[in-house]
Amino acid sequence: MRRMKTALRTHHCGELRTTDINKEVSLCGWIHKTRKLGGATFIDLRDRYGITQLVFLGDDENSNTLLQEGFSREMVIRATGTVIERESKNKNLSTGDIEIKLKNVEVLNKALTPPFTIEDDTDGGDELRMKYRYLDLRRNAVRKNLELRHRMAIETRNFLDKQNFLEVETPVLIKSTPEGARDFVVPSRMNGGQFYALPQSPQTFKQLLMVSGFDRYYQIVKCFRDEDLRADRQPEFTQIDCEMSFVEQEDILNTFEGLVKHLFKTVKGLDIPEIPRMTYADAMKYFGNDKPDTRFEMKLVEMNAVVAGKNFKVFDEAELVIAICAKGAAEYTRKQLDELTEWVKRPQIGATGLVYAKHNTDGTIKSSVDKFYNEEDLKKWSDTCGSQPGDLILILAGKEDKTRKAMSELRLEMGNRLGLRDKNKFSCLWVIDFPLLEWNEGDPNLLASLAGRWHAKHHPFTSPKPEDIALLNTSPGDVRANAYDIVINGVEVGGGSIRIHNKELQAKMFEVLGFSSEEAQKQFGFLMNAFEFGAPPHGGIAFGFDRLCSLFGGAESIRDFIAFPKNNSGRDVMIDAPSEISEEQLNELSIALRQK
Amino acid sequence: MRRMKTALRTHHCGELRTTDINKEVSLCGWIHKTRKLGGATFIDLRDRYGITQLVFLGDDENSNTLLQEGFSREMVIRATGTVIERESKNKNLSTGDIEIKLKNVEVLNKALTPPFTIEDDTDGGDELRMKYRYLDLRRNAVRKNLELRHRMAIETRNFLDKQNFLEVETPVLIKSTPEGARDFVVPSRMNGGQFYALPQSPQTFKQLLMVSGFDRYYQIVKCFRDEDLRADRQPEFTQIDCEMSFVEQEDILNTFEGLVKHLFKTVKGLDIPEIPRMTYADAMKYFGNDKPDTRFEMKLVEMNAVVAGKNFKVFDEAELVIAICAKGAAEYTRKQLDELTEWVKRPQIGATGLVYAKHNTDGTIKSSVDKFYNEEDLKKWSDTCGSQPGDLILILAGKEDKTRKAMSELRLEMGNRLGLRDKNKFSCLWVIDFPLLEWNEGDPNLLASLAGRWHAKHHPFTSPKPEDIALLNTSPGDVRANAYDIVINGVEVGGGSIRIHNKELQAKMFEVLGFSSEEAQKQFGFLMNAFEFGAPPHGGIAFGFDRLCSLFGGAESIRDFIAFPKNNSGRDVMIDAPSEISEEQLNELSIALRQK
Repeated sequence: MRRMKTALRTHHCGELRTTDINKEVSLCGWIHKTRKLGGATFIDLRDRYGITQLVFLGDDENSNTLLQEGFSREMVIRATGTVIERESKNKNLSTGDIEIKLKNVEVLNKALTPPFTIEDDTDGGDELRMKYRYLDLRRNAVRKNLELRHRMAIETRNFLDKQNFLEVETPVLIKSTPEGARDFVVPSRMNGGQFYALPQSPQTFKQLLMVSGFDRYYQIVKCFRDEDLRADRQPEFTQIDCEMSFVEQEDILNTFEGLVKHLFKTVKGLDIPEIPRMTYADAMKYFGNDKPDTRFEMKLVEMNAVVAGKNFKVFDEAELVIAICAKGAAEYTRKQLDELTEWVKRPQIGATGLVYAKHNTDGTIKSSVDKFYNEEDLKKWSDTCGSQPGDLILILAGKEDKTRKAMSELRLEMGNRLGLRDKNKFSCLWVIDFPLLEWNEGDPNLLASLAGRWHAKHHPFTSPKPEDIALLNTSPGDVRANAYDIVINGVEVGGGSIRIHNKELQAKMFEVLGFSSEEAQKQFGFLMNAFEFGAPPHGGIAFGFDRLCSLFGGAESIRDFIAFPKNNSGRDVMIDAPSEISEEQLNELSIALRQK
Repeated sequence: MRRMKTALRTHHCGELRTTDINKEVSLCGWIHKTRKLGGATFIDLRDRYGITQLVFLGDDENSNTLLQEGFSREMVIRATGTVIERESKNKNLSTGDIEIKLKNVEVLNKALTPPFTIEDDTDGGDELRMKYRYLDLRRNAVRKNLELRHRMAIETRNFLDKQNFLEVETPVLIKSTPEGARDFVVPSRMNGGQFYALPQSPQTFKQLLMVSGFDRYYQIVKCFRDEDLRADRQPEFTQIDCEMSFVEQEDILNTFEGLVKHLFKTVKGLDIPEIPRMTYADAMKYFGNDKPDTRFEMKLVEMNAVVAGKNFKVFDEAELVIAICAKGAAEYTRKQLDELTEWVKRPQIGATGLVYAKHNTDGTIKSSVDKFYNEEDLKKWSDTCGSQPGDLILILAGKEDKTRKAMSELRLEMGNRLGLRDKNKFSCLWVIDFPLLEWNEGDPNLLASLAGRWHAKHHPFTSPKPEDIALLNTSPGDVRANAYDIVINGVEVGGGSIRIHNKELQAKMFEVLGFSSEEAQKQFGFLMNAFEFGAPPHGGIAFGFDRLCSLFGGAESIRDFIAFPKNNSGRDVMIDAPSEISEEQLNELSIALRQK
């Protein structure tokens, strides 16, 4: 920490120790608190680096004059005085052994009373904190998140630099390619009637850099997606974006497993074990989810064969009957089970009911459908689910997709209720062999004109597995991709694929996605042409940096890991953006507002 | 260089040495050249790391089969073979002591013949190179520029991180504030009729971070300006953006002098001396320019008093008569001087003529206006200009501003002609005490509605010098700012200021700039309000990163230090952006094209 000394201060507020006693010092910062004790006045002075106690002992004629001014919370001052030993030391402060006996205080700026308290647990609501984000950022807890983010970025760059990755900045003003999510667009003044788009990712540019022979590229880069926002989405977000040449999937998994381990080690001090791999098919089968939280087991078990033929129509007529075994939950009360039944029937979960079987500690098994299943039947349930005395079996039944999804939610909920999702414990997983395509029934985040077509699950540049290419013509939905996600604690923090590097295959892919060859050429001709000039085999990955930081910080929402986030309507309520612009500006840009 | 090995290669093309002889290796890359010699075929295989020679000795039955395929320039191959010692070593290649005796070659991708040669001196013109930028980037010279840029960014971050600066990402979708240069704007779909703007700089956000107590902020960040482009401007550009609290100008100059020294040391291996400082007034007086090239002296000398009263009307009637002394140029021929006279009369320079005086090696002085000035007069000229035998005095006369500007151009031109502007020599300078305001006569880069007003020379948040504040009411043009630029070799690579941190002074500044208090509140209310909650004294600087890189790379233009630059019409000719967007997109964004 060189050069922390400036014209206005000799030290910062987290720096002074008993070895500094008797030094004359000047500190600058914000008044965090003041209190009087006998004749003395104490001030806690705060800056980014800590808090130092200042004191007017009341034995100096200066004191009274200075105190007359009155010190208010969050006022900015420059304090000059002598470091003295503190009578009652504060073990919770790094500077708790000393205090500053004040000679002079200069008020650098006054402060109105903040609309909420500048404490870790503030009394400010979300809306108020966002309006005064510059005050919210004064809170230790929020600033620490952004310090973590800084450290994550530095360590990411150091790791990748050592592995010979080059950070290359790709353009922000690019071309609209409306086959993905919606683009944000920028009208061009110099090319009236034409628009740039902001990148949803630097995908095509990083592939071109591979064609250029850059071999290893990365960038920590802002990306943009004009989506209807959910709580944890932002219209602008940051990616760690990477690409490598002359690799197979295995190289990428190994390299970026290295990055993840490096970050856990250097930022959190944790050694994480080798990251296991699971196919997409297994993830869906055992967890009902392509991003399973593997901090706990509680796998989904298909029960159709076991429960069939006992005249329980709900099970007999169901496409899927599926169970989980909640360890040690057999003592759940009737009230708790009723409440859980209500929980699965909420529209967000969508189950029609919940069947359970208690595997009691005495070895007996008691189900909510004893009318249909006897002790022997239930023993089979237990064997299939692997339940032990003390466990609770929970069963859902219905349409395949919906029921699997509902059970995935129930599994996570039971994980929460049983305390199995400790935010300080980390479980990483590679999910591999994703399907190449999914059918777009009418995704609200895509243009309406794209409904009723195949849609690329990752993106249109993802390579199908060579052995599945033939299926592109016959059953596109069954084609698997050389695509992978990295999942930590049930959160997808990154994903990527081996790319197509051959013009014909890329053209075929656009055809399957419903592009005419003219459209494909118009939008992505530059890339397909590039593939004809010697494109190497290549692949890559992108990490959601906001989410990775929030995960490392042990938080649910990404918002407090972004300095100036937008709200769910895409507004920055602090600066009040977006906003209207002048007729003069619209005119120069050759556009007009449309009357709705 | 760990993990350069991948599934497809054991080594890269810049790696193998005599210590590797007899190893079985696989290399991947592009065919740079092939040639036949006797029965042998030689291939230069290229990747980012170097070139390795492959050889079919013709003594292997495999050879003929493989060679039948035919190898073409830029084809991508995987070559497997044995490292052997080379008979005729190539001292110019790091791998020049060895070659690979080929066992097998796998063609990974074919290549059409590139439209220009992939060499340092290519035969491709600018337009062609930009259209096929992905091939242009294969050229060693261009890739080296981007490697330099990567290194500059890494070293910048390492330096600032050690000084406790936090990199904080500020938003890209912000609010339009049309008082500066033109904004690029982004229509909001979710807030129909409203627009975001792309930031011209993160100025207000970094100031808010100071209000938040972040103390030291930096960011290497993309910024955007919708200007009519010149050869060395881009609509999107990158800044090293920095801000510090509790500082005075001196702290900022010292800290960032440290950064510049660190970059020269670590990237170029150069120790640069302490950076001198010059006031804006002196820069204009002695160099006619606020970004003087100080690699050479040749200061401007005012001659009015010396030349007056000799009946030479051109000089007597001129507002300014100004000279430079070009060392050692007395032997310029009549032809050279005529050509120089034509040069200053070009419209870009705008002088009406050129007067000269040769200080001959025999001590005599001979001028182009001997009719009016005798030997004794010319002796005075020489004394004033400090000319020595062998020097050439060049004089321009006319309107003050125009003449000073023309002389600045002539000085630079003479610097070029006399070989004083060596791109491998670096001369840094701080220019300080800039004027706060300048009068906007009708700058084409500003909205027309802003003409006939005072305009902030740096930006509206720059602090006037405290002693000049009173002049804001009486003669705004004379107010000096706490603003500074860093100039290297006549190029402004950075600039900044101490900021206003007081609401009243900020409001006064907006008033001087012609804002109504309602407009000021509407556009910048969030900042002025923030100043009321305890804003610390603060200041900062921003470096033009593209330009800094091009300067370090010894190049004139920034374009080859940007991976995918735009042309002078703001177009990316490779991807063909900007482009038209669909009616469906326009409709969703609540805008329509305007018929011109």
